[in-house]
Amino acid sequence: SRMPVPPSTHPRRLLPLFLGLFQGALLLFFSLFVTYDEPSAQAQDTNLVANQVYSTFPFFQDIQVMLVVGLGLLLTFLPRYGFSALTHNFLLLNFSMQWALVLQGLLHHFHHGQIHLDLHKLLISEFAAVTVLISVGAILGRASPCQLLVMATCEIPIYLASEWVIVTCLGVLDVGGTITIHVFSCYFGLGVSKALFRATQQPLHPKETPTPRSDLMSLVGTLILWVFWPSFVAVLCQPGDAQHRAILNTLLAMSASAVTTVVASSLLEKDGKLSPGHLQNGSLAGGVTIGVVADMTMPPVAALALGSLSAVVCVLGFRFLTPLLGRKLTLHDQCGIHNLHGLPGILGAAASVLAVLVASKDTSGSHSSQLSPVGGNASEVVEGQWGGRGAGGQALCQAAGLAVAVGASLLAGLLTGAALRLPRLARPPERLCFDDSLYFKIQDQAESPGTDSGAEEGALALKEQV
Amino acid sequence: SRMPVPPSTHPRRLLPLFLGLFQGALLLFFSLFVTYDEPSAQAQDTNLVANQVYSTFPFFQDIQVMLVVGLGLLLTFLPRYGFSALTHNFLLLNFSMQWALVLQGLLHHFHHGQIHLDLHKLLISEFAAVTVLISVGAILGRASPCQLLVMATCEIPIYLASEWVIVTCLGVLDVGGTITIHVFSCYFGLGVSKALFRATQQPLHPKETPTPRSDLMSLVGTLILWVFWPSFVAVLCQPGDAQHRAILNTLLAMSASAVTTVVASSLLEKDGKLSPGHLQNGSLAGGVTIGVVADMTMPPVAALALGSLSAVVCVLGFRFLTPLLGRKLTLHDQCGIHNLHGLPGILGAAASVLAVLVASKDTSGSHSSQLSPVGGNASEVVEGQWGGRGAGGQALCQAAGLAVAVGASLLAGLLTGAALRLPRLARPPERLCFDDSLYFKIQDQAESPGTDSGAEEGALALKEQV
Amino acid sequence: SRMPVPPSTHPRRLLPLFLGLFQGALLLFFSLFVTYDEPSAQAQDTNLVANQVYSTFPFFQDIQVMLVVGLGLLLTFLPRYGFSALTHNFLLLNFSMQWALVLQGLLHHFHHGQIHLDLHKLLISEFAAVTVLISVGAILGRASPCQLLVMATCEIPIYLASEWVIVTCLGVLDVGGTITIHVFSCYFGLGVSKALFRATQQPLHPKETPTPRSDLMSLVGTLILWVFWPSFVAVLCQPGDAQHRAILNTLLAMSASAVTTVVASSLLEKDGKLSPGHLQNGSLAGGVTIGVVADMTMPPVAALALGSLSAVVCVLGFRFLTPLLGRKLTLHDQCGIHNLHGLPGILGAAASVLAVLVASKDTSGSHSSQLSPVGGNASEVVEGQWGGRGAGGQALCQAAGLAVAVGASLLAGLLTGAALRLPRLARPPERLCFDDSLYFKIQDQAESPGTDSGAEEGALALKEQV
Repeated sequence: SRMPVPPSTHPRRLLPLFLGLFQGALLLFFSLFVTYDEPSAQAQDTNLVANQVYSTFPFFQDIQVMLVVGLGLLLTFLPRYGFSALTHNFLLLNFSMQWALVLQGLLHHFHHGQIHLDLHKLLISEFAAVTVLISVGAILGRASPCQLLVMATCEIPIYLASEWVIVTCLGVLDVGGTITIHVFSCYFGLGVSKALFRATQQPLHPKETPTPRSDLMSLVGTLILWVFWPSFVAVLCQPGDAQHRAILNTLLAMSASAVTTVVASSLLEKDGKLSPGHLQNGSLAGGVTIGVVADMTMPPVAALALGSLSAVVCVLGFRFLTPLLGRKLTLHDQCGIHNLHGLPGILGAAASVLAVLVASKDTSGSHSSQLSPVGGNASEVVEGQWGGRGAGGQALCQAAGLAVAVGASLLAGLLTGAALRLPRLARPPERLCFDDSLYFKIQDQAESPGTDSGAEEGALALKEQV
Repeated sequence: SRMPVPPSTHPRRLLPLFLGLFQGALLLFFSLFVTYDEPSAQAQDTNLVANQVYSTFPFFQDIQVMLVVGLGLLLTFLPRYGFSALTHNFLLLNFSMQWALVLQGLLHHFHHGQIHLDLHKLLISEFAAVTVLISVGAILGRASPCQLLVMATCEIPIYLASEWVIVTCLGVLDVGGTITIHVFSCYFGLGVSKALFRATQQPLHPKETPTPRSDLMSLVGTLILWVFWPSFVAVLCQPGDAQHRAILNTLLAMSASAVTTVVASSLLEKDGKLSPGHLQNGSLAGGVTIGVVADMTMPPVAALALGSLSAVVCVLGFRFLTPLLGRKLTLHDQCGIHNLHGLPGILGAAASVLAVLVASKDTSGSHSSQLSPVGGNASEVVEGQWGGRGAGGQALCQAAGLAVAVGASLLAGLLTGAALRLPRLARPPERLCFDDSLYFKIQDQAESPGTDSGAEEGALALKEQV
Repeated sequence: SRMPVPPSTHPRRLLPLFLGLFQGALLLFFSLFVTYDEPSAQAQDTNLVANQVYSTFPFFQDIQVMLVVGLGLLLTFLPRYGFSALTHNFLLLNFSMQWALVLQGLLHHFHHGQIHLDLHKLLISEFAAVTVLISVGAILGRASPCQLLVMATCEIPIYLASEWVIVTCLGVLDVGGTITIHVFSCYFGLGVSKALFRATQQPLHPKETPTPRSDLMSLVGTLILWVFWPSFVAVLCQPGDAQHRAILNTLLAMSASAVTTVVASSLLEKDGKLSPGHLQNGSLAGGVTIGVVADMTMPPVAALALGSLSAVVCVLGFRFLTPLLGRKLTLHDQCGIHNLHGLPGILGAAASVLAVLVASKDTSGSHSSQLSPVGGNASEVVEGQWGGRGAGGQALCQAAGLAVAVGASLLAGLLTGAALRLPRLARPPERLCFDDSLYFKIQDQAESPGTDSGAEEGALALKEQV
């Protein structure tokens, strides 16, 4: 038997220790290096700042609602794990955003010893944090908060590096983060899951089945995400035509997704009943796919088609691929992130290759003004499009970006998952998974007969220490 | 006994068939006819587009939240039908919006073979879809998804025609859609209900009674609708004074509604207890009523008075009129849409007649600048007000618009309801109504003892086929 | 025994009587004195109005969501009192806003016999209403709606007077309402609670313990408040740098609060489990504290530090101070408003004293442009800062403002609480507290065995009348 863990480092003490130290380091870092922009000296500048605030802040708020409320509620489909899902999502968002702010400050914005903080930098950090929130979906309910925080600590720097390679080095166009965020975080999460659970097939846990009530809450989360998704895709677009187009394309794609999900889900079941899980995820698949091409010039029908196709792919993934991966590769994917973020993301990347090639053909024809990926004026477009590398080159870059995202994230995820097996991080034993009362002072749920879980938990906690 | 239905057209196969064909047709239509606006060539235009996006998009998002989350939650008051209510609302919104987009493209915007899509056109289509979402309230829980989709298919073109007559031909002023949307959709829904259920009085279903939990969720929906209603009313107003006034009037009316609903509801009950249904609906009545006069120049007290009056009318309707209509006309109105949309809508139309007449009297007096219904400048007002037809003429038009809305919708609703009786559309048998598990793979609810509903449902499904 | 209450003034008749009379008076007041601004005559002005609408309205909507949905849901942690909490919050918001509108019209804006209503005046009234919504937290579940309305009637004028003294007379800087709103309403609420319940220690009520479901709903409310809090703090800031800084400071403080709450809560419990109550409140403490300094020039690290510190103070308050106050002073604080609004508010006031003093030191040094509390240009700053009273004087004013807020509110709260003891106001007997079915036609909750509460309630109602 193992040595008793000294009180100060008991698993449940590790969380505040880790977080407390991090907050201290954050304060130190901010006090040394971070400042606000100098106040703008002239009235002209004041107007400019005000306009920036009014144009970015509503998008920023929409994204906050998506991540904190929408995504949080989506994860409450586990009936006895709702409070944990909501809280862990909230905690990870804040921790990851702060961590990304520090890293970005150190990596990119280190000018003259001072980092000038503004809303745009916070937004970029929030985008980095999204990757963590998505990856968590693969292991939701079976990991301790400490494991999740360590995962976030590893994922953020790897994301920043991968995003730098994909966007800055390769010049991949990906305004909505389809490749850099969705594909990356999906395969990172799957890598973590694989390395964490290894070859042990996870049996169906009695607390894992959604109830009508938890399915309803989760659907509300989906709807909130669905409504605000256009803000997520369009916030970093060039104002004007490109942003307008990104909003329209996202709206069309998500509308097609919603309808097609119903078609696909009811066709796939013998009795024609719709699966709540399909609805909760399929309706959003269009938003994942469209991100990478949302601001490109393409006919509206392409947005509709991508939305429909992504929903089909997502529902098929839930129906066939997830069980297959579980059986053949013993790959556990609790929320089906591969179906919502992986497959639609790959579809989007493929679409972006096509869009670049088609746009180039159109260009050599008549309408030169339709070329621009960012809706700039024509002279810019002819010379500066895709950094002068031509359509074929750009298409290759898009494909290379996808390869980098998948490869880097899988590898890093596997390594991170292996690190999460450290006993100190206190993965909860299977019998105590999916239960709020393991981490929260929450009364036992009335609808469950298991009133002896307290005793069981105590015994296991004891065992853990010996 | 009827012939067995062949597998391919079994009722539950009809839904994906119908929706799938529609999505295919939509793709075809878009690929042939729909494009985006040409990118704006100059910096000036880019700013213009950006400003349009920033001024319309937040309103648009607010309206999306209202329809998808707020209205969806409002309909979850049926305790075992929440998932269906939310999903059907979501599906109908998307289907109807797409269908309205197609029809509007064909009818109005067909220039040079191409339809130029923009955010404004999506918004107009969304408004058309609202009519369907309201009408559904009359038959909520007792209709199959197929019936709802057929209803949407019929209602959208009739709405577009009726809106064209009322606004374009008659020149009715109705910036918040009180007459064109609320009154129209209410009587359409009642017509459908009457023709669908005919003379059979619907008995109280055991699953029809709200639980405290479902009432709470529904109230949250009301509150979301209440908060964002000003955006719905003001989005199509002229920017500047008129929009400002529309927002203020709506805020005042809804605030008065909220307080007056409490007064009216507690006065009407012997023990003084408030009825959840009154609160969920009465608080919103002011928003329905104010829509038609929101941007007109009238003193703020009028907005308060209309808000209070509409709440009284709504609560009285629930207390006396709905039971009366049920008994005398065997008219079934599940959500009480007549009390929330019908009566307050008619009240609003009457108020608009009065407002037009009073504004004209004021004009002949001193302040000519107060005349304008859209807050334009004074010279426009004197000449161009109400298309030069004078106050009396305009008042008559407002009344005529109401008559058209009521007449056309009732007639069309009755015809549509008759069509919904087609056996193929598979209206659920009474015993299986108000239950999510008929259409969704949802676990039986713990609080219900009826674990044999599966067997019952199977038997009835069998019976349905024979 | 008391005389039977005549039917017309039975407690449950008092509510509609009171509210009805108020609505009538409101209509009268509006018809006599309130009008809209004259329509702007020129295109220039129209643009101006439009810009004002676009810059203020999104903030206003965010604040409405916070108060109506967020705060409402936060209060639903009492499992059988959710509907009441949501409705009373909604009713009090509307009543208090209307009442504040009337009083403000009478007190401040009475020019030429007419009050010109605009969005800004509504916003100011909404801020006044917030004080009532906070104070209610001290007596939530144990007071009748009539008592709550009387409390609102008393609190609004006292708030307006106190706000006038603090901001206009003393010149206290408090852009986010930390002192004027949070501290004031907290001690007002505690005063009411003390005078209402006197020395009787409130025993733990069986319906007072949150269930997992009610805790989840309450947490959703917290998250909504958390997301939109920056709008609440920044809405009244000068557009441009100051507003931008206020948004950033609030985001940083709230992010630090969220993480630190987890640290503090899990350190304070023996088994390391987090308390839902700590999370629901501690995550918001940073927003309360930062309000008073949000637009001042201070390094970003100060916002983080204040956010962390306020969360620690809040959690410590829940763990030690609230039980202590309950035992020693028999002070009852149902929602722990002292921990969320009182202590963090005092912390914020202290921070503002420090910020003023430090900013003045910086000024005498090099960067004169960093002085300005509102980000104006440098020449203004040197002459006009703090009305020419110097840093020491301003610091003293901040402290005096805090003293006024605490003193005035405690005294007024005690008097108001004494008035609430009037038997006519019908405080519910202890056994019927925390139950929706006392005021709403709501079915008895399935999960509670107490089906005899109807009988019990009838008996008590009878007793009440004798």
